Formats: sequence, structure tokens, C-alpha cells
Amino acid sequence: MLVLTDAQIARMDAESGGYGLIERGALVISGDRIVWTGVESELPAAYAHAARHDLGGRLVTPGLIDCHTHIVFGGDRAREFEMRLEGASYEEISRAGGGILSSVRATRDADEAVLLAAALKRVDQLLAEGVTTLEIKSGYGLDVASELKMLRVARLIGEMRPVHVRTSWLAAHALPPEYKDDRAGYIRDVVIAGMQAGHAEDLIDAVDGFCEGIAFSRDEMAAIFDHAETLGIPVKLHAEQLSDLGGAAMAAQHGAMSADHLEWLGQDGIDAMAASGTVAVLLPGAFYTLRETKYPPVQALRDAGVPIALATDCNPGTSPLTSILLTMNMGATLFRLTPSECLTGVTRHAATALGLNDRGQIAPGLRADLAIWDVKHPAELTYRIGFNPLHARIVGGEFV
Amino acid sequence: MLVLTDAQIARMDAESGGYGLIERGALVISGDRIVWTGVESELPAAYAHAARHDLGGRLVTPGLIDCHTHIVFGGDRAREFEMRLEGASYEEISRAGGGILSSVRATRDADEAVLLAAALKRVDQLLAEGVTTLEIKSGYGLDVASELKMLRVARLIGEMRPVHVRTSWLAAHALPPEYKDDRAGYIRDVVIAGMQAGHAEDLIDAVDGFCEGIAFSRDEMAAIFDHAETLGIPVKLHAEQLSDLGGAAMAAQHGAMSADHLEWLGQDGIDAMAASGTVAVLLPGAFYTLRETKYPPVQALRDAGVPIALATDCNPGTSPLTSILLTMNMGATLFRLTPSECLTGVTRHAATALGLNDRGQIAPGLRADLAIWDVKHPAELTYRIGFNPLHARIVGGEFV
Ligand SMILES: [Zn+2]
Ligand SMILES: [Zn+2]
Repeated sequence: MLVLTDAQIARMDAESGGYGLIERGALVISGDRIVWTGVESELPAAYAHAARHDLGGRLVTPGLIDCHTHIVFGGDRAREFEMRLEGASYEEISRAGGGILSSVRATRDADEAVLLAAALKRVDQLLAEGVTTLEIKSGYGLDVASELKMLRVARLIGEMRPVHVRTSWLAAHALPPEYKDDRAGYIRDVVIAGMQAGHAEDLIDAVDGFCEGIAFSRDEMAAIFDHAETLGIPVKLHAEQLSDLGGAAMAAQHGAMSADHLEWLGQDGIDAMAASGTVAVLLPGAFYTLRETKYPPVQALRDAGVPIALATDCNPGTSPLTSILLTMNMGATLFRLTPSECLTGVTRHAATALGLNDRGQIAPGLRADLAIWDVKHPAELTYRIGFNPLHARIVGGEFV
Repeated sequence: MLVLTDAQIARMDAESGGYGLIERGALVISGDRIVWTGVESELPAAYAHAARHDLGGRLVTPGLIDCHTHIVFGGDRAREFEMRLEGASYEEISRAGGGILSSVRATRDADEAVLLAAALKRVDQLLAEGVTTLEIKSGYGLDVASELKMLRVARLIGEMRPVHVRTSWLAAHALPPEYKDDRAGYIRDVVIAGMQAGHAEDLIDAVDGFCEGIAFSRDEMAAIFDHAETLGIPVKLHAEQLSDLGGAAMAAQHGAMSADHLEWLGQDGIDAMAASGTVAVLLPGAFYTLRETKYPPVQALRDAGVPIALATDCNPGTSPLTSILLTMNMGATLFRLTPSECLTGVTRHAATALGLNDRGQIAPGLRADLAIWDVKHPAELTYRIGFNPLHARIVGGEFV
């Protein structure tokens, strides 16, 4: 039993709908759970003799959740980034081996140890900013063995670091060259067959896909989701990033936990997401990197009551971003979310986007995954750019 | 004497015009100076018995230089940021005590120790990213005592941390309420009188001003610069951020070391800057925070041969940014500078913007202020977002 005292607590609970601030609060942890929280002067006598940890007025929030990453991959794309800025054409970059297929080649070539070491450097930056739950997708292997290898590395990250990892099967990310004339074959031999193999190995917590003109169609994704459903695996979708293919609505009809990106989302998609409780995961790092000008329909999502989450989308091509705090600032600066919405987007709504109802808020019975911050007001977490005021993380009731 | 071996060295020298890379390089330091650099196999016999430090292939760059900050200030503006995103009008924010005058009040109210402690947290984030020289402006005091207090704190930062601090006198930042009907009186009693007092106390390395419709006119700034000239203090100017007042051209005619912001800079200003060797300091953090759409004339600056630097503009209102690496990424992503230009912008050209010719490049005779990075290629420093690959800093020949 541990009692945190002299804390400012941002509960981020659904009832308050915002920060749910408790000033001069206390928080009691037993095992890996929160058992009590409230004003310190009302701390029940039962906890009077437990060990105390004085937070000196610091802010406590739920541990942050990055609910959309591609953080396991081989190589990097720094030279491609540089070539583009030096004026190279798409063809020149492609001839020089750039683009997503360069990440696929590097990921296929790397063994688990190499992938793990590279990913841990990025993961550690997220943990240093208070992340306690992290989603990781496959999608740079594009063959069964390499896709499964990515998810094994994702699971290893959860064993090697004090962070919960949730995995998503994203074989439907791009079509590899060896299947370029056989889309159905790729879906059958890799996406579906690999899903079954990964499921048998307990490597897959969700099934994801990239629904876009340059990737997979709505009907292809619907068929993949039908297979996920037969295996009892929940689904989510990259949808409406570059065009409106109706992917979010289709995903919502499959009960998707989230639809992600959504710059081109229309009212039909919004209504379908509201009806199914699907979370809108916005990814401002990709919007920023791609210099997009089409904004996700934030006000319409609010009006429809669709929960909004934020994530890094950490990936080597379109969002080489490993800062969840900067993601929050971008959510506010670029998408005009309020700081309270940004913090909700990396706590409660991010948990929902991963199908987790035991975290993302501070309340009795929930996991004691917490972040403690050297700030006076929770808005500071979103306001600053490139500043990390984390004081400590608590995962499963333990300071880590 | 210290020899760094197995290094990839980015000299950032004028001769190469770019990275000036040396693969498998070595670098010899004696005292606070670089005495030799080149390919390791050509290391002169004279250094064969000096202490060696193997860098394992890591990248060495000049220590980074943040040549434009307002990093000393009281309070923060997180609640104002939040109110604006929650839809508060300018008047509501002003009534709630927001805006630049809230920073002025908080700065006047804080003593040196409070200002120092708050600034050091921000400074430490910059140092953690390889900064070895830092410019700090006054400008939130707006009375002689408070402006001088800010610069004393700036000097203290340079004593308390292994970083070189260069100060700028920015009393001409805004007109305080007590002088709102007496611009000439403010310039005479505070800007000029304070400049003389600060110069006598050796607190002022440069004189700066904010030349804008909402601040000071070109003629007012010219008169202030004339006074700086009589004291032998070099000048620089915030110019053409929100409109084109011809500030950069006026500054160039005064031999300014830099003109900063420059979104609205026209060809006349560019030509004048080229003629005087004035550095264009671009500040993408403010551009990003203010969601500007008018881009600085990067191609025209290149064509005219005007050196381009980048800086954080760290300040509580329009750029609460404490990451020089993110500034480089923004320079590339938002302003389309190449990674090589971004790195030059925080090394060689940033040194020139501060009138320093003993740093910002790696060459014999220059200061041994260096940053050592866990990256394979210098483009990685600009490519990543929210990732800090710094391995170590060397200031004046010492690992710090
Ligand atoms: Zn993604
Ligand atoms: Zn400034």
C-alpha cells in the first residue's frame, strides 16, 4: 500500500468530461490498482498508516497512452527526407531505393535483436514522457514471417521495458512487389494466413489496415475484417487520410475500436462512428510532416460526440515522431483541440481506442499507471514545445 | 591534449558549404581549442601519444548555437494558450491579464533567483540537445531595473552552466502601459538610458528591437541603433514578421549582425542584407505557433547569398519552444530548408548572427565546442521529430 500525498490530481474521468482536477489530493495504491483518490484532508483512517510519498504539489495524470505507432521497423529514411528537400523527384527517390519499400527491405533484413535495439531507443523517448501503454503495429514485413517477427519484437518491448504493449496486425499496409499483380493472393496468403498464425501464437491484439487508393479498398478491408471477426479479434482502420473512401463508416459497421487519420472524413462516417462508439484517432505528426492542408473535422466530431484520441503515428516515412507531448501541442496548434481534449486524447480516449477500460482515468479499481509532472497546471503539458516536465512514472503501482 | 578517434566529423565549414564530412576522422583538442582535424590514418605523429577517446563511429558537429531566445522571463502563458483554444476573445484574454504584459508583470515581480531557476529548466533542455552557445534577450522588464535584472540573470546562466551566453538589450520590445502616451519618453528614459547603464555594467553584447506596427517604427529603431553605435555595440532586429516596414534594410544599413523573422521581407531588404552580410535568422517556432501562412523568402535569400540561421525564439507567448533539434525539423518541414542548411543554420551561420568567428565550424584554431551524436548521418538530426540522439557535449575542450 502506497499513499501519494500533496498531489494535484487530473482524474480525466468521463463524469467531469475534462481534467477532473482535485487540488491538494491524495491517491492510494494497493498492488497494481488505485484504491482511493480524493482530497487529502478526507483520506480515510484505514490508510493513515500506509507508506506515504509527498509529491510537493506536483500534478498526477493517468499514464499516457500512445494508441497508434509503427515504432518497430528497420533502417531509417533520413536520406530520403534529405533528397526530397534537395529537390529530388519521386522517381529519383524511388530509384535510390526510397519510399515504404525501403523500410520493408530493411525490416525483412533485420533480425529480432536488431529491430528490438532500434525500437527501444524510440520507445525510451516515449517512456521518458510518461507513456505507460503503447500500441505497436506490424506492416513493414509484408510477408508472414516478417510480419510475425515485428509483433514478436513488439511483445519483447513490453517484457524489456515497464510499459504495456498492445499489438495490431497491419499486413494490409501496402502490397509488396512480389504480389503486385495478385492482390487477392496477398490478402489470402499473407494478410489472412498470417493473421491466423499470429492469432495462434497470441501475437495479435487487433487487426488494422490502410484503406486508401494507394493501398487497400474498402471492400478488401471489409473482407479482412470479416476474418478478424471469425477469430474474435477487434479491428481498427487507417481511413480517410488522403481521400474519402468510406473506410471509417465500414470500420464502424464492423464495430471498430478506432478509425485513424480522418482528414477527409465526411458526415456519414462521423455518424457511423458515433453510432458504434468508434474513437477518432487524430495523427497530427503525419499531417505536419506531409504539410497537409485538409483538416480533420474536429468540430463535427465534437458535435456528434465521437471521442477524439491523439497519437504519434511514429513511423519512418510520414511521422518520424517520438514525442507524445509534442503530439499534444500539435493537436492544439494544428487541429485546435483544447489542452483538456489533448490530454483526454492521450489518456481516456486513447485507452478506448485500444479497447482497454482499466486505465486512462484515475479512479478506484483502475490500474495504477500514472505520470507525475513538475507543472502547476495540466494545460502546461500541451502548451510547451519540446519541453519534458516528467517527474516520475508509476506502472502497475511501482515507480519505474 | 585529447584526441577523438573513429569519428564522423561534420566540419560545417564555409569552404565545403555543406556538412564538410570527414569519414573515419580524428580531432585533436589542446586546451579550449581544436588543433587538428582530418582523416584518422593521417593523424600527425606529434599526437600519437596523447590521450584518446574512441567515438565508435559517432558523428561530431560543432556545438549547436541558439542565436535568438527570450528564455529569461517570469510566469508562463499556459492558461492564456488554453483560453484561446477554448474560444476566448482577445479582449477576454486581455481582461484575464494575458498577453505580453502578463509576462512583463511576472518578470518585474520575480527576483533574480526566481528568474534564474525558471530559466535554467528551459536552458537545460537546450543543453541536453547539444547547445553550447546561447543568445538571451531582455525585453520583459520594460523598465531599466527589470531589463538589467534579466541580463544579469542571463550572465548568471553562463556562469552556472557550461554554455556561452550572449546577451541582447531588447528594451524596445513593447511599450509598457506607464509610457503609453509617451513613446519618446520611453525610448529616452528606458531604452537609451538603460542601454548606457547596461553597457557600463558590461551586460550588453548587442542591441535588438521589435520593428513592427504594434511595437517600434523603423525611424525609432534607427535612432536607437545610432545610440548603440556611439557605444560601439553591434545591433540586430526583429523585422518583417507581421508586415514589411523596411526594418531589415534599415538594420542592414546599420551593419546589423542579423535581421530575424523576415516572413514579409521584400527584395529590397534581401539586397540590403546581402550587401551588409547581415544574417537572416528564421524562427519557425513562432511561425508554427502563430499558424502563419506567409513564408520567409528562402529561395530569394539563397539566390542573394544571404546566410540563413535558425533559432528557437524561445518565449512564453509566440514560441514556447526549447528544442533546437525540433527547430531544425521545422526549418526543413515548414520552410523547406535542406538538412544541411538547417545544421549550418544552428552552427556556422548562427555564430555569424552573434558576431562570433571563433566557433560554429570545426577547424584548427577554433573553440573546441562540440556535440557528439548517436547517428549515422547528419541528416538524421533534422529528420527526426522529438528524438534526441545526443551522446555528449564538449565545451572549451572538456566533456560536460
Ligand atoms: Zn499509421
Ligand atoms: Zn524574438
